[in-house]
Amino acid sequence: MTVRPGLTGCGVAETLKVIGDRWSLLILRNAFHGVRRFDAFQEQLSISTSVLSDRLARLVREGVLERRPAPDDGRAAEYRLTEAGLDLYPVLISLNQWGDRWRPDPAGERLRLIERATGQPIRGAAVLSEAGAPLTARDVAPEAGPALAPDLAELVETHRKRLLKSAP
Amino acid sequence: MTVRPGLTGCGVAETLKVIGDRWSLLILRNAFHGVRRFDAFQEQLSISTSVLSDRLARLVREGVLERRPAPDDGRAAEYRLTEAGLDLYPVLISLNQWGDRWRPDPAGERLRLIERATGQPIRGAAVLSEAGAPLTARDVAPEAGPALAPDLAELVETHRKRLLKSAP
Repeated sequence: MTVRPGLTGCGVAETLKVIGDRWSLLILRNAFHGVRRFDAFQEQLSISTSVLSDRLARLVREGVLERRPAPDDGRAAEYRLTEAGLDLYPVLISLNQWGDRWRPDPAGERLRLIERATGQPIRGAAVLSEAGAPLTARDVAPEAGPALAPDLAELVETHRKRLLKSAP
Repeated sequence: MTVRPGLTGCGVAETLKVIGDRWSLLILRNAFHGVRRFDAFQEQLSISTSVLSDRLARLVREGVLERRPAPDDGRAAEYRLTEAGLDLYPVLISLNQWGDRWRPDPAGERLRLIERATGQPIRGAAVLSEAGAPLTARDVAPEAGPALAPDLAELVETHRKRLLKSAP
């Protein structure tokens, strides 16, 4: 990977090295919907064998999926979300939520997400304050930490100073 | 766009049509950090003029960014997040959070996100129940709505039935 300014040394960029393409995110969506077998991913996504192999291998190498023998057929492999993979749930739910809100289908709802313990629809993905209140981008000021890429740190500090001049 | 199974008729897929590539997400990251000018995006991302033009034009066409004259120089254009663009904040924060958690930097924190009204660090992105409790993927069962792509609906119903057989 060529390291260029803004493409490394930031949490967003580090995540996009792992899942920053449409296929990887669609594979993960299907994994969250319970898909485990190579053939099932392929059939469902109409993806070429080489692209699917490449993406699954990367997701395994990056610790997002685990490849292991299928319990009902030891010759077959299945791909299961690891803890790191399961922790991508807010990414997938926020992508889903934006699409449902800004690209609605006139035929109605696409997906209902139900809390298993209560049977109630979930509220969805949100950015929360320490006290648990929902926040928008306008409510939040970024600060560069010691490990932020220097070019981004400059950007972030400029933005922070501009925000400090205006009311929250 | 070629319509293939699983690539349309789902909130995630619809969102990925708009922002499903690494450059678009890095452009949006920088827009959330206050970048507005073509030159500033280009310098900061080391992105080619043609790729940057293409991605900005798509984000404008899709209603995520608005292109307008810069207030201090009417000949220059600036790109500002629209309401739909600002609503992608949970996507960006959840990407950032995953990278910081699973790809930490030994030098320390990269970015601190501070609630402007209180000066406190934010909690971050989460998936919430109707009552506001944080949920993991294991807590949630999906149900196909009338507008879900048929191939995905089949997948989702199979997954739901499997979940119903096990304890929440």
